[in-house]
Order: sequence, then C-alpha cells, then structure tokens
Amino acid sequence: MDQGFVNTEISNDGLATITFGHPAHNSLPSLLLSRLSGQIQSAATSPEVRLILLKSAGDRTFCAGASFDELLTLTDEASGKAFFSGFANVINTIRRSSKLVICRAQGKAVGGGVGLMAACDYCFASEQVAVKLSEISINIGPFVIAPALERKIGLSAFTTLSLNPTTFFNAYWAQQQGLVHTVQPTVAEMDKAIERFCDPLLGKSQEALTALKRTLWQGTDHWEVLLYDLAATSGRLALSEESQQSLREFKRR
Amino acid sequence: MDQGFVNTEISNDGLATITFGHPAHNSLPSLLLSRLSGQIQSAATSPEVRLILLKSAGDRTFCAGASFDELLTLTDEASGKAFFSGFANVINTIRRSSKLVICRAQGKAVGGGVGLMAACDYCFASEQVAVKLSEISINIGPFVIAPALERKIGLSAFTTLSLNPTTFFNAYWAQQQGLVHTVQPTVAEMDKAIERFCDPLLGKSQEALTALKRTLWQGTDHWEVLLYDLAATSGRLALSEESQQSLREFKRR
Amino acid sequence: MDQGFVNTEISNDGLATITFGHPAHNSLPSLLLSRLSGQIQSAATSPEVRLILLKSAGDRTFCAGASFDELLTLTDEASGKAFFSGFANVINTIRRSSKLVICRAQGKAVGGGVGLMAACDYCFASEQVAVKLSEISINIGPFVIAPALERKIGLSAFTTLSLNPTTFFNAYWAQQQGLVHTVQPTVAEMDKAIERFCDPLLGKSQEALTALKRTLWQGTDHWEVLLYDLAATSGRLALSEESQQSLREFKRR
Repeated sequence: MDQGFVNTEISNDGLATITFGHPAHNSLPSLLLSRLSGQIQSAATSPEVRLILLKSAGDRTFCAGASFDELLTLTDEASGKAFFSGFANVINTIRRSSKLVICRAQGKAVGGGVGLMAACDYCFASEQVAVKLSEISINIGPFVIAPALERKIGLSAFTTLSLNPTTFFNAYWAQQQGLVHTVQPTVAEMDKAIERFCDPLLGKSQEALTALKRTLWQGTDHWEVLLYDLAATSGRLALSEESQQSLREFKRR
Repeated sequence: MDQGFVNTEISNDGLATITFGHPAHNSLPSLLLSRLSGQIQSAATSPEVRLILLKSAGDRTFCAGASFDELLTLTDEASGKAFFSGFANVINTIRRSSKLVICRAQGKAVGGGVGLMAACDYCFASEQVAVKLSEISINIGPFVIAPALERKIGLSAFTTLSLNPTTFFNAYWAQQQGLVHTVQPTVAEMDKAIERFCDPLLGKSQEALTALKRTLWQGTDHWEVLLYDLAATSGRLALSEESQQSLREFKRR
Repeated sequence: MDQGFVNTEISNDGLATITFGHPAHNSLPSLLLSRLSGQIQSAATSPEVRLILLKSAGDRTFCAGASFDELLTLTDEASGKAFFSGFANVINTIRRSSKLVICRAQGKAVGGGVGLMAACDYCFASEQVAVKLSEISINIGPFVIAPALERKIGLSAFTTLSLNPTTFFNAYWAQQQGLVHTVQPTVAEMDKAIERFCDPLLGKSQEALTALKRTLWQGTDHWEVLLYDLAATSGRLALSEESQQSLREFKRR
C-alpha cells in the first residue's frame, strides 16, 4: 500500500519547500506525521535554510487530517495518545523552529489539516480552500489543534468551526478570522504571491526574523505539555465505541 | 407586582430550554438572576439533559440587563456587590456547566443582557438583535461582564461598546466581532436554524462534548474570584450620587 | 535644526489635547518621545484633566515612527536600548494613565507610529490613514510595539503587518482588525466625531472611567519589564551592519 511521502527541496536562496502527500486525500498517518516533524526540524536547524514553505501534493485536498484507517486500528489509550501526539509533535516543531514556516493551501482542509494551517506562521490559500472541523461528527473533538486555532482565530471562530462539524467554511471566511493571510483566485496566482512574499524575506537579517518568530510565539512554552494532554483526550475518545462506530460508518460511504 | 419568571422544559432527546421573562423588557432583578443560576445548574447536572438552550420571553427585547428598580434600592456596598454577584453567578454557572449552553436572542440586549449572550457557548440571533453597553451612561461600567465579552469579541470591540454607551450595534456587527455565531432574518428562521444545529449535537458523545466545553473554557478558573471583585466595583459605583441620579433620570423618561 | 515639539492644551471641560510634531513626517527622536511621556504623565495626574487626546501636527503623516536620523547615530547596545525604551516609556505611560487616552490619526502611520495608535485606548482615523510596519525592511522588527498591537488586533493581523513590511494597509482594514475604532471620510468629519464622542464622556463619573480603564488594561502589568526587554532586542538589531546599511539606503532615496 502507498503510505504517502514527505520530501524537502532547498533552493539556492534558502527556501526549504517541504511537501507531503498521501493517496487518501493527503490524510496523515503516524508515519507521515513523524516524517513531517523530522523534516521541519531538519530545515529549521540547517544553516542553508532561511525560510520554510509547507505544502501538499496534488491540486485538490490540502489535507484531510488524521488518517481514519489508522484511527480504526487503535487498540488502547497509549496507542491513541501516541497517534494524536504525532500532530502535537508537528505543531510544536513548527513553534520551536527559529525559521518562519509559511503554509501553501491549495484546497480543502479538514480537522488536523486545519490545525497545520493554523500552526504555520503565515498561510496562503487559493479560492478552492475551505475548512471544516469534523471531529465532533466522529465523537472525538478538535483538541490537539485547539490552541493553534484559538491563537490565530480566537475562541469564537474556533467555536463556530467546532460545533458545525459538517460545514465547510470558505477561504474568505478563513481570511476574515485570521487563519489565512492571503487568498488568491487561482493556485497559479497563489504561487506568484508566495514568490513575491518570500523573495524579499529571504534577503533579510536572519537574526531579525528569528527574533520576530520568538515574539510571535511568546507565551506558548506550555504547549510542550498541553498538546500531549490534549492528545491523550483525543486518543481516549477515539477508542470509544461511539467513535469507532462513526469511523466505520464514514469508511463505508 | 409581577417579578418575572424562569422555567425549564426538557425535551425527550435531552434539550433543556430555560426561559426567563420580566415585564420590564426582560430586565433582571436579583431574584431572577438567582433562579437562572439555579436552573442552569440543575440542567447542567441532570443526567437526562445533553444540551441547554437559554432564551427569554416575548418577541421584543432579549434582555435589558440589570433591573434599574433594584439598583435604586441599593443601600450599601454589601448590597451593591450582592446584586452584581447575581450576574457573576449566572456567568460562572454557564462556565462550569459540563453541558454546552446555547443562547437564543430575538431582540435588543443591553448591559448584563449582552453579558449573558457572551457567556453562552454559542449564540443565535435574529436580525432584530442589537447590543448596547449603557453602563457608562449611568456612571457605572460593564465590569462583571467584561471578561465574558473580551473572551468572545476581544479588547478592541469591547472598548467600542463600552465607550459608546448610547449606541446600539446591530446583529451583523455582533456576528463580525464573534459575539453572535449565526444571524437569521426572522425569529422563525432562527428557530429552525437552532433545531438544525442542536439535533445532530444531541446525538453525539456526551463525553466528547464535555471535553470540548472544557477546552473552550480553559484558562478561566480565576473567574471564580475575578467576577466577584468586579461585582464589588460595580456595586460601589452604583451607590455613588452620580450613578443614583442618572438612574433616577432614566426612570423619569 | 528643528527638533520638533510636544505641547498640551487643556480645555475648560477637562480635555487635554497633546500634540506632537516633527519636520521629518512627524517621526520621533528620543527628545520628543521623552516629552510625550512627560506630558501624558502630567495630564494623567492633573486634577483638571478628565480625558486625553493625542494628535500630531499637520494634515499629512500622522507619525513616521522612529527617527532614522537618530537610529544612524546609535553606537552601542546601551544607546540602542535607550532609544527604543523611549517608545516603551510612552506606551507604558498611556497604559498606567488613569485617564482614557484617545488617538486622532489624520494620515499615514509607520512602525512606532502604528504602535502609538495601538497603545491609546480608542483611535479615530480619517480615510487618509494607512498603516505599515516597515521594521523588517530595515532588518530590525516591530518588537516594542508588538504587545500593544497584539492586544488590539490579535496575533494574525499583527503577523500580516510584520511580514508585509512594504505594504500600507488602509483605514478600513485597520478598523476591521480593531486598531481603529471609528473611520471618517474627512479630517473635518473626524474632528466632529471626536467631539461627539468626548463631550458626553467628559461629563461622566471619573471614578467609573478610571475603573473601566483599569479593566481594559488588566493583565498587562508585566509590560513594565517586557517592553524594555523588547527595546533591548530592537536596539541590538538596529546596530547590526545589515540594519545600518538599510537605514543609509533609505536615507539616500
């Protein structure tokens, strides 16, 4: 079975482009989450990298979130917590990175995929982007990604997303709430906008950009513990009969 | 004298509808505030309740806030603090409830009435809704409700409301700021939207919804003390000659 | 050389209007920052003052931020920190003031000028207002003003401003984010709106307004230390060869 991929390309001027892909709508099993953390961490510490761009494969879904296939294989609370800790690791790796991480979203994002967008420092979207937090539908909840989302869009918009688990909210709504910073009509125009944005930043003082990154993330040190507590909550709920049954129903559709 | 009422109806599928009403534009004297806290607390702990809907009587004003009649009877700082602690109790009861509390606002809200909307987890409004914080007009201030409002709409929108005490801001403004989550053109359409929203949630894992509620309110434990300190501030100011005089002037109109 | 001015006028009904001006687009050298703090502090403690209005001279730029001329004279980390501490002092003086401080912005604001707008309690703007955080362009960063901006506009809008250092965002964008509370089409209409806003507030209980000011700034006591740490960061970066060179290039244009 194709288990997806994560790869990194580094341009001469210091832009590390990290791309992930998975045949099931770019959903994320543990293996990909672990590779994502690893490659973000490598780029963050590489002296030749000045800026990190996170993107996904293809021209459809940006990221479908947690792998439902893997959620159905969970057997105990430890494996549940371990799975969701994969998202906690990616978010904390972006947070700790001294380099800014830019997100490029070309299509729909669900659950943990919305969390990825929120965890990045700056997010570009094409008009095809729409976001949905479906967790309550499957009797879990958007826990690990809650701090990253609340930090960007505030409590009220996070509540709107959490409690409307079957509704996709569009790119302009996401921009108005602060999840997305720039919306472009097409993917091609988004890519040009990303270039116009990154090019000048690549020429700026790395010390200044790092100090700015630290200022932006001030007050989030407790995420080192908090996100894993939330991963335990998600893991425990995902094991419940209610949750496993709704996951099986989703799979049958 | 009709002192108003609070009642609770529980549907077969677990929706507790709590309705308050008062002849003076659904304003809130101590007695109603105390009954509101009590009935929210009962619903929150009742095993047959899964979700709480807070609404008010009639098709005009949602809630005019603190009862001016009672404010004019205050005699000392203790009675002042006790009165405003009634709002603190309602807000903290909603906050501590393990069940989500949904608000249904059908018309204007003033002062403490806006605080009620903010304290609930999710707020529906009809287009007839408009909100005003008139407290500074009567030489008090929107203190007890400040944390609930800032949590939802942020400091800047709270400042706009506080310092424009004679201006009503409409339902769409309230939605843009995050006070209201859904605006519907009519009360009938709002009631249908509430049904569409509540029905699926009533079928979801109570454990997941409770964990979500806890996540949404993370970092507010200090309200157990803070809101009563703020109640003391409001109580002290309400006793001032400046405040009592402006209350009498309002009454004469 | 004309080093600019700061003056205070106090009206009979207790409005202290503090005006600053500098020939270089109302930019701020240490001397003006120090006079600004001093006069705000005097107005805040004067028994005849009830409300403070902060404005700048002329009908063009509201404030160009830090004086580039002075940045080019910095010689060591101590002088760098001392210069940026001038902004920290102004912001903390506004914060500590028991009187509300209203800002009147008639034109463009850059860097520290945007910080001034954010630090005030309420901000009026004419349509000519546009805001830009150019700091990253000169290899520094918007550090000292970051807490004041994040408090008003949130992290996401602050990120948008910080990472688009050559883009001016207009008055309506600034209002939508919460930096500006009221936008008026012309300066004349803004001045009428300021009068309509201040006149009733000047007649309200000073005790109530002071209690409201305290509530609005709750949780910011740590700025007494934080802003000076951030001033040290800015000061250190401003001394770098990258920063000094970009400052010289800006001057040559």
